[in-house]
Amino acid sequence: MTFSTERRVEFRDTDAAGIVHFSAFFPMMEAAEHEFLRSLGLSVMPGAGANYPSVTWPRVAATCNYLAAAHFEDILRISVRVAKIGTTSVVYAFRFHREEEAIAEGTMTAVCCRLPDRPQVPSTGGLKKTPIPDPIRELLSRGV
Amino acid sequence: MTFSTERRVEFRDTDAAGIVHFSAFFPMMEAAEHEFLRSLGLSVMPGAGANYPSVTWPRVAATCNYLAAAHFEDILRISVRVAKIGTTSVVYAFRFHREEEAIAEGTMTAVCCRLPDRPQVPSTGGLKKTPIPDPIRELLSRGV
Amino acid sequence: MTFSTERRVEFRDTDAAGIVHFSAFFPMMEAAEHEFLRSLGLSVMPGAGANYPSVTWPRVAATCNYLAAAHFEDILRISVRVAKIGTTSVVYAFRFHREEEAIAEGTMTAVCCRLPDRPQVPSTGGLKKTPIPDPIRELLSRGV
Amino acid sequence: MTFSTERRVEFRDTDAAGIVHFSAFFPMMEAAEHEFLRSLGLSVMPGAGANYPSVTWPRVAATCNYLAAAHFEDILRISVRVAKIGTTSVVYAFRFHREEEAIAEGTMTAVCCRLPDRPQVPSTGGLKKTPIPDPIRELLSRGV
Repeated sequence: MTFSTERRVEFRDTDAAGIVHFSAFFPMMEAAEHEFLRSLGLSVMPGAGANYPSVTWPRVAATCNYLAAAHFEDILRISVRVAKIGTTSVVYAFRFHREEEAIAEGTMTAVCCRLPDRPQVPSTGGLKKTPIPDPIRELLSRGV
Repeated sequence: MTFSTERRVEFRDTDAAGIVHFSAFFPMMEAAEHEFLRSLGLSVMPGAGANYPSVTWPRVAATCNYLAAAHFEDILRISVRVAKIGTTSVVYAFRFHREEEAIAEGTMTAVCCRLPDRPQVPSTGGLKKTPIPDPIRELLSRGV
Repeated sequence: MTFSTERRVEFRDTDAAGIVHFSAFFPMMEAAEHEFLRSLGLSVMPGAGANYPSVTWPRVAATCNYLAAAHFEDILRISVRVAKIGTTSVVYAFRFHREEEAIAEGTMTAVCCRLPDRPQVPSTGGLKKTPIPDPIRELLSRGV
Repeated sequence: MTFSTERRVEFRDTDAAGIVHFSAFFPMMEAAEHEFLRSLGLSVMPGAGANYPSVTWPRVAATCNYLAAAHFEDILRISVRVAKIGTTSVVYAFRFHREEEAIAEGTMTAVCCRLPDRPQVPSTGGLKKTPIPDPIRELLSRGV
């Protein structure tokens, strides 16, 4: 199972070389991940109503390979796949295409952490790794 | 009294027109404001140790006029001045220069708000306006 | 005539105060402006095929007033209106709403400039103001 | 030989989880790379005066591993090392520390490309890989 979504390159995504800045692919991956999670009925920052413990997903690794330049107003199709699920972490794999042309491919590794009971603003970190709750694991596993 | 600081334009600040993106001036203003506040011994997000109530400064207005284009690797001098202090708000005025050439000028209006006693992550807003604490007002007023 | 579009707040738009960073509203305004221009059949960076001289629209002013905080995953409706057309410049007015709640309102002033015949990469600026071409003026004027 | 530089985390680098957004490490790597290149007398976008052909360095790969969260106003020390030089590409390795604590480590692979003689704005890409000019190779090799 692969989820995919489209977005148009905005001007702020570009740089003085006239192309999408390499760093701009990472927020695009994250937005696609979040859209994928919403499509499963999950949220990255679930509220009190959820029927499983509140968890958050800090990233521990991210990679991207750039295959062709993308430009302002290009329409990019971004696919998201769950490449691997461990006890506490999940690896997403992403592909960016402009029509049939491969533009970039990347990965993002997120670790499941329990949200603190009495959080502080600003957060001082201190998140604790926790096994991925079963209802979430089940949903994500459909994509492996 | 005017505070000033310098920064070099980074590649991520530019866009496909080959110049600094207009939106990139706002984080530069904010960073200069924060550096100014630190120079006064203040922080935008004070911890428990401060001898006045913990406050934060959400922005209620921002403006910028662009006078000349800035480019990658330009060194910009940014001056910060307290243009006005009200009961609960402060207006900062900024000027950007590249050597003698005026590049941009802007303003930012921040409102003094009390940090909640039991904050939530993510914050759900709900900040309450509060009069600027006297020790802070005194420090900022030196700049008016 | 008012154009409007929707977008969902992405995580990269937020800051450690738990809300959308004030600077993030400016790229959102610009993206809405570009979507508006595309809806008129115009492009911010027209290619050789257009039936009028190639122009570009550097910004000379931008403002934003923040009325309420926006948060991760909020859906914002952004309206774009041509508030004023001068000989060489256009002022856009923007409003951001989350359902019925006003979140922010802003303006952006863009100046019509002719693209150089022999551009350099990276651009060294040197754009020249030019009267807004009639076909563009006519399209934009429908919105005043 | 390792080059290192410091920077303070700015508010725009943070996100609603209260920490530096994972994507913000990439522009920091790039800025450190550019500072390293300037320290060698090189520029990422050399002008006509240079005594070697004008080249530019699009990225073909970037990775980052996140070891600990960074926060607003943290001072990060970023080290840059040339990990590998090929015929046409260079791999940089980066480490981020907050005092003695390792925060992140990453890599960036850049490919040497010749700037076109008659560039277009906006660039349509079409850059051609070229062997790294000897004067640049020599400077970078001191770091391997």
